[in-house]
Amino acid sequence: MNLFSKEIMHVGEMASGAKLTVPVYRLKAKDVPEPKGNAKKKVSSVYIQANMHGAEVQGNAVIYQLLELLKSVKVLGDITLVPYANPVGCNHKNGEYTLGRFDPITGMNWNRMYHFDTEIIKPFVQECIGKDDATIEANFKALMIDTIEQKLDHNIFGLTTGQRMAYQLQRLAHQADLVLDLHTGPISSKHLYCPEYAQESAKYFDIPHTLFIPNEFDGALDEATFCPWWHLQEAFSDLGIEFSISSKALNKESFTVELGSQEQIDLDVALEDAKSILNYLQYKGVIESTEFQPKEMIRYGCYLKDYKAFYSPMGGMVDYLAEFGQPLAAGEPLARILRMDNYDYDQNSDKSSSLHYLSLDHEVIPILHFASASVNQGTELYKVFTKYFTF
Amino acid sequence: MNLFSKEIMHVGEMASGAKLTVPVYRLKAKDVPEPKGNAKKKVSSVYIQANMHGAEVQGNAVIYQLLELLKSVKVLGDITLVPYANPVGCNHKNGEYTLGRFDPITGMNWNRMYHFDTEIIKPFVQECIGKDDATIEANFKALMIDTIEQKLDHNIFGLTTGQRMAYQLQRLAHQADLVLDLHTGPISSKHLYCPEYAQESAKYFDIPHTLFIPNEFDGALDEATFCPWWHLQEAFSDLGIEFSISSKALNKESFTVELGSQEQIDLDVALEDAKSILNYLQYKGVIESTEFQPKEMIRYGCYLKDYKAFYSPMGGMVDYLAEFGQPLAAGEPLARILRMDNYDYDQNSDKSSSLHYLSLDHEVIPILHFASASVNQGTELYKVFTKYFTF
Amino acid sequence: MNLFSKEIMHVGEMASGAKLTVPVYRLKAKDVPEPKGNAKKKVSSVYIQANMHGAEVQGNAVIYQLLELLKSVKVLGDITLVPYANPVGCNHKNGEYTLGRFDPITGMNWNRMYHFDTEIIKPFVQECIGKDDATIEANFKALMIDTIEQKLDHNIFGLTTGQRMAYQLQRLAHQADLVLDLHTGPISSKHLYCPEYAQESAKYFDIPHTLFIPNEFDGALDEATFCPWWHLQEAFSDLGIEFSISSKALNKESFTVELGSQEQIDLDVALEDAKSILNYLQYKGVIESTEFQPKEMIRYGCYLKDYKAFYSPMGGMVDYLAEFGQPLAAGEPLARILRMDNYDYDQNSDKSSSLHYLSLDHEVIPILHFASASVNQGTELYKVFTKYFTF
Amino acid sequence: MNLFSKEIMHVGEMASGAKLTVPVYRLKAKDVPEPKGNAKKKVSSVYIQANMHGAEVQGNAVIYQLLELLKSVKVLGDITLVPYANPVGCNHKNGEYTLGRFDPITGMNWNRMYHFDTEIIKPFVQECIGKDDATIEANFKALMIDTIEQKLDHNIFGLTTGQRMAYQLQRLAHQADLVLDLHTGPISSKHLYCPEYAQESAKYFDIPHTLFIPNEFDGALDEATFCPWWHLQEAFSDLGIEFSISSKALNKESFTVELGSQEQIDLDVALEDAKSILNYLQYKGVIESTEFQPKEMIRYGCYLKDYKAFYSPMGGMVDYLAEFGQPLAAGEPLARILRMDNYDYDQNSDKSSSLHYLSLDHEVIPILHFASASVNQGTELYKVFTKYFTF
Repeated sequence: MNLFSKEIMHVGEMASGAKLTVPVYRLKAKDVPEPKGNAKKKVSSVYIQANMHGAEVQGNAVIYQLLELLKSVKVLGDITLVPYANPVGCNHKNGEYTLGRFDPITGMNWNRMYHFDTEIIKPFVQECIGKDDATIEANFKALMIDTIEQKLDHNIFGLTTGQRMAYQLQRLAHQADLVLDLHTGPISSKHLYCPEYAQESAKYFDIPHTLFIPNEFDGALDEATFCPWWHLQEAFSDLGIEFSISSKALNKESFTVELGSQEQIDLDVALEDAKSILNYLQYKGVIESTEFQPKEMIRYGCYLKDYKAFYSPMGGMVDYLAEFGQPLAAGEPLARILRMDNYDYDQNSDKSSSLHYLSLDHEVIPILHFASASVNQGTELYKVFTKYFTF
Repeated sequence: MNLFSKEIMHVGEMASGAKLTVPVYRLKAKDVPEPKGNAKKKVSSVYIQANMHGAEVQGNAVIYQLLELLKSVKVLGDITLVPYANPVGCNHKNGEYTLGRFDPITGMNWNRMYHFDTEIIKPFVQECIGKDDATIEANFKALMIDTIEQKLDHNIFGLTTGQRMAYQLQRLAHQADLVLDLHTGPISSKHLYCPEYAQESAKYFDIPHTLFIPNEFDGALDEATFCPWWHLQEAFSDLGIEFSISSKALNKESFTVELGSQEQIDLDVALEDAKSILNYLQYKGVIESTEFQPKEMIRYGCYLKDYKAFYSPMGGMVDYLAEFGQPLAAGEPLARILRMDNYDYDQNSDKSSSLHYLSLDHEVIPILHFASASVNQGTELYKVFTKYFTF
Repeated sequence: MNLFSKEIMHVGEMASGAKLTVPVYRLKAKDVPEPKGNAKKKVSSVYIQANMHGAEVQGNAVIYQLLELLKSVKVLGDITLVPYANPVGCNHKNGEYTLGRFDPITGMNWNRMYHFDTEIIKPFVQECIGKDDATIEANFKALMIDTIEQKLDHNIFGLTTGQRMAYQLQRLAHQADLVLDLHTGPISSKHLYCPEYAQESAKYFDIPHTLFIPNEFDGALDEATFCPWWHLQEAFSDLGIEFSISSKALNKESFTVELGSQEQIDLDVALEDAKSILNYLQYKGVIESTEFQPKEMIRYGCYLKDYKAFYSPMGGMVDYLAEFGQPLAAGEPLARILRMDNYDYDQNSDKSSSLHYLSLDHEVIPILHFASASVNQGTELYKVFTKYFTF
Repeated sequence: MNLFSKEIMHVGEMASGAKLTVPVYRLKAKDVPEPKGNAKKKVSSVYIQANMHGAEVQGNAVIYQLLELLKSVKVLGDITLVPYANPVGCNHKNGEYTLGRFDPITGMNWNRMYHFDTEIIKPFVQECIGKDDATIEANFKALMIDTIEQKLDHNIFGLTTGQRMAYQLQRLAHQADLVLDLHTGPISSKHLYCPEYAQESAKYFDIPHTLFIPNEFDGALDEATFCPWWHLQEAFSDLGIEFSISSKALNKESFTVELGSQEQIDLDVALEDAKSILNYLQYKGVIESTEFQPKEMIRYGCYLKDYKAFYSPMGGMVDYLAEFGQPLAAGEPLARILRMDNYDYDQNSDKSSSLHYLSLDHEVIPILHFASASVNQGTELYKVFTKYFTF
C-alpha cells in the first residue's frame, strides 16, 4: 500500500485570531522505473486542488476517492492533493448556502487572484541562450516560485486575504508539471477547461465537453500555471528556438475540471471522476495501471471566445428547460420565465402573458445554468457552447 | 370563462423610496346555487398565498396553474390568490441564492410575524351568549380584522417591516374561510401542515405526508387563521356550548402546503399541485367539477411534537443518502459525512476515518434535508417523522 | 503580580472541520481573608464574557484592560473572563461589516439561545425543605449545571450550532455568582440591563442609563443566570421561606453591559469601562482596592416594558438628530428622513417635500439608533426610554 | 426661481418583476448670455450622480442641497442630477448595513462596469481630418452615445444587471461636459479623484486632498467619461494636431468626489459640500454668482500610483489611531491590533503580547480606513498618500 504524508498549511488568520489552514496530502513516487540506455525518461509530478470556490465541494470527494484508489496503484510521479483549498470560502454561509465564489468583504473572485506577470519572460529567455531544456525548465520553475515568494514575503503594504491564500497554493502548484483545479458549475454538466495546445490530453478524461483556452492570463490557477510555460515556448519560438512544453520531457499541462453542480457531495459519482482523472494520469505516465481507460464518447469542443453567457432579458422566475450537453436547435426554448406580477388571460393564444419563452436564433449546446429559479434582469441564465465542434 | 380582478397592494417601502407591492388576484363566485327550502347553504371562501419565504417560489407557479385551471371551472365561492407575498424576501440575493427565510436586517423569520392574542377570546365569548352561529362568525371575523387594522394603523412606535407585510396579508386571509399558505422545504418531499381537527380534509390533497398541528400559536399564517377559531370553539365548549368550526356552516381550515424543494420552478409539477388543491376545493364545495379527485395513496401522519429535526453532530460535507417519504429502519444511514481535513488509511476497516455514517436508533420517515452539502456542527441536517401512523 | 490561567474551549466545528474555539482566562482568588469568628464570609465569584454578537467587539478590549488592571489588584474571588465568546459571529463578514447578530444560516439571535426551564424549580424546592441556604445554593448550582450538561451530551437529535456554544458558555457562567455579559448597541450610548432586584448595584457602574428587567426568561445570558435564582427565591417565598439571592451570602446578580457602539475598538475608552466594572467588583467584595470608586452622575432608570423601539414610518435616508442620553421634549425631532425620489420645491414652506421630520408626542430619552443611514419602512430607528426616572 | 424637470429612468427588473428606477432631475440653462462679436462662448453642461455604491449615501444629501441652492442661482448651463443611481445597491441590506459595493450575486464592483473601448479612437480620428473642433466634439459625443446604445439594445446574449444600469447612466453622462460622481470612502476624510490634466480645477473644491489619475480606463464613471476625450486629444497630438480638451471651448472634465464616510447622512455637511461643488461650477461658468468661492487651504496631491492600500498583516481587532489628512511620520502607529486569543503578561515590556502596533517606515498621509474594527489578515486597513506634494 502506498504511503502518503499530510501537512497543514497556514494560509491566513481571521479577526478572532483563528488560523486558516489547508490540508496538503502527498504521495511520493516510489516505483520510478530505471532509465534504460540513454533514454532519460522523466516522470511528471501532479498537483490537484479542490474547493477554491466555497460551494464547489464535489472535488473534495474526488480527492477522497483518488486517495482511496491510489492506495494500491503503482505511482511513478509525485502527487500532491489539496482539498478545502479555501478555508474562508468553504465555511462562509449566508442562509443555507455557501457564499464562496468571492471574498465576502471585497467581492473579488477567489479564482482570479493568482499571479503571472509576462514581464518576467523576456529577460529570462535572454539568460537561457545555449542552455539545455532541463536546465531551462529547472531555472524557470525556480524563477516562478521565487517570484511568488517575493510577493508573499516582501511587500511592506501587504497582500489581500485572497492573494495570500492563492499565492501559497500557487507555490505548491508551480512545483508540479500537471495541474488539475477541481471546480463545479452552479447547476451544470461536467466540462473541462483545457489549454488549446493540450487537446489530445482532453480525450483521456471521461468528460464530453471541453473548452479550449488561449494563452491569456486572467488570474485563474490553470492559467497561472500553464501561461508562463506557453509564453516561454512562444518567446523561444520568436527566436527560432524550439522549446516544446508538450514534449514528453517537459509536459506542462493545467486543467480546470468542472465536476457538475455545486452544493453537492456524491461519493459514487466522485469515484467515477477519480477514475477519469486516473485515466489521464495513466496516459501521462504518472501512474502505471491497466485499469484506467477513458470511455468512448462524442467529445464536443468549443473555443473560449465562443463560450457565451446568456443574460436574462427580464426579471422573473425561471423554469429551466434545455437539456445540458446536447445541441439545442435555433428557436428551441432554453427556459420559460414566469411573471406573476402581470398575469392575464390571453384569449388569442395558448400562452398566458405571464409566461415568456426564451430562445436563441442559432444552435448551441447548453452547459450550465444559474443556481436559482429567481433571476433579475441581467442575471447569467445559461452558459452555452456556440460554434462547437467534435474532436 | 371566469373573470378575475387584480389589485396591487402596497406593503412597504425601501430606503430608496421604492414601493414594495404584492399582486392580489380575485375570482368572484358567480355560480352560487340558489338555496333550496330553508337550507341556507353557505359556500366557503378561499385565500391562497405563495412565496412568503423568498426562495420558496414554486407556489407562484401553482397559483399560475390555478388561475389557468379556474378559467373554465364552475366557481361557487370567492377565491383570492396572492403570489409573491413577500417582495423583500423574494428579491433578496446573497450570491446566487435567495436569502428569503428571514429579514436580512433582523434575522426574524418572515413566517413568524403574524398576530394572534388569545386575550381577545374570553371577552368576545361573553358577548356572544345567546347569539346564533352566523352572527358569532360574522362578529368574530370583524373582531379579528379590526384587531389587525388597529395594529396596522394605530401604533405611535410603528411596526417592523415584517409585521407590516404580514398584517396586511393576514387581513386578507381573515376574510376567507379556507386558507392555504404555499411553501416549500429546502430539499424536500411534498408534505402538509394540517390542524389536528381537519384530518379528513388532508385526504383530499395528493400529498402522502401530513403533520397534524395542535392549537398553539407560533406566529405562522396557518396558525394565525385557524387558532383563533379553534380557541373560540374551545371557549364555547368550556361553557358547554357547541360551536363547531368544522361544521359545513362554519368550515374554518388552514393549511401550510409544502410543495417540495425551494429555488425551483417547475410548471408541469405545478399543474399537478394545482389539481391537488382543486381536489380539496371541490371537496369543500368551493368549485363544482367532476374532474378533480384525489389520488389513491398511503397517507402517513405525524404529530408536530414527533416531527424531529436532526442536527449534525459534526461539521463536514454531506452525502445525503436516505430516500424521502419511506420508512427508514433503525441503524440505516441517513447520510455520510466527509471530512477531508483528517483523511487517513484505516487498515482494519473498509471505511476511511474521514467518512462518517449517521443513523438513528429507531425507525423514521425522512421528509426533507438541508439545502447544502456543507454543514457546521449543529446545522439542521434532516427533518423526520417519528412515531408516524397511516390514516 | 496575579497569575492567570488560560484554557481553549472547543465550542463547535465548521464544514471544513475547522474547530471553533473560545479562550477562557481565569484568575484564582489568592488573597481570600481568613474568616473571623463564626462569620463565614463568602466571597463571590465572577464570570465576564464579551462579543457574543459578532460586531460588538469593544467588550474584548474591556477584558484586555481588566486583565491588565487585575495584574496588580488584590483579588478575593475567582474571576473568569471569556473574550471572543462566539467564534462564528465574530468572523462572519458580509461586505465590510460583521454580520454577527444572528446565525447566518437560521437567523436565530445568538443571545436568545441560552436555556432555562422553570419546570425545574418546584420539584427542587420540595427537596430543599429543611436544608440550609449554603446547601440549597450548592445543590441548585449543581442542578443548573447538570441540566445544561444533559442537554449538551444526551440528545440523540443533537443541538443547534448556537445552542452548543451558548450552553458551554452558560455552564461556565453558572459556576459564578456574578455574571457580566459585555455587549454594545448599534450606534449607542452606554447603558446597563439590570434585574429589578439589583438596583443598588447599578449605581456602582459608571453608566448613567439603566434598564430594569423583570423575572422573565427570553433566552439571554443575563436572564439565564439570574432568572433561575429569582424564581427559586419566589418559590420559597410562596412557601413563606426567606431565601434572599441579594443577601451577602448568596449574592446572585447578572448584567448585560452595553458599552456603546458596535464595530469599534477603543482601548482608552475600554480602560474607563474596565475601571467601571472594577468599581462594581470592589463594591461586591471580589477585589479589594481603594482605587475604584463610581463617578457621581445623574442615573436614569427605565423598566423594560417602557423601553420602546421606534420603527421608521417610511423608507428613506436618515439624518439622526437626537442626542443620546438626554431627555428630548415632545415634538422635538429624533431624525429627519431624506427622500430624493420625490424632491420638489415647496413654495409655501421652508422645508422641501423630500425632507421629513420625525418626532414623538411625549418626552423620551434616546439611547441608541440604527447603524446605517438607509432604512426601510419598519426598520428599528431608535430605542428610547419612556416613563424614565432617576434613582 | 429656476424650474427643474424630473424623469424616472427604468434601469432594470427584479425577480418579482419590480421595476428598478432612478430619478433624473434636470435644470435647463435659462440665462445663457448672448455671444458678443465672434467669440462664440460655449457654456458647459454638467452631470452629477450619487450613490452608485449602496452605502455611499451622502451624495444624495448633497444633490438635495444643490437643488435647494440652485433654486435661486443664475444657471447658464444645463445641469442633470441623479441621486439613488443604483437602486439594487441602495436597498441591499445584510444585517444592519448596506451591502452595496458590488453585485450581491456576482461580486462585481458596481463602479467598474462602465464602457470604453480605445479601439474607437483611431478610426474616428481618421474621419476627422480637416474638421473643426466643434464638429469633432459633436461627432465624438454622438459616437460615444451611439456605442453605448448599441451595447444596450443590440446584444443577443444580453447584458449583466450592472452593465444595464451603468450604460444608462453613462449615456446621460456623455451628454454633459463636466461629470461629478459622488462617492464616499468607508470611514474617510474628503478627497477628490481628478484627471492629471485638470489639476487647476481641483483647487476650486473645498477638499484638501486630491488624487491625480492617469489616462487609463478601469471601468469607473469618471474614467469612462474623460478617458475617451483624453485619448482623442492624444491621438490628434500624435498626428501633430492640437485638440485641447481643457480649452474653454471643449472643457471636458470628470471627477469622483469622495464626500467622507459611508452609511451617513448629514444635511449640514452636505450643504457645505454642495457649496464646494458650486464653487467649481461658478469657476467653470456653469452658474453665475459671486457667492461661491473656494476656501483657502493647504492642498495635498498624490498620483494614483502612489496611493497605497495597506493590508492588515494579521487578523484581529483594530483600534485605528492615525488622524486623517495629516502627514504621519515614519514609525508612528497607524493602528494597534488587539488579539485576545493570546493574551499574556509580558513582564519585560509595557505592552502586552496581545497588542500589536502597526506603522510604516516612511511618511504618509492617511486618507481613509476600513469600516469595521474586525479584520482578517489581508483586509485593507488604510489607504494612504505616499510621495504626496502640495499644489
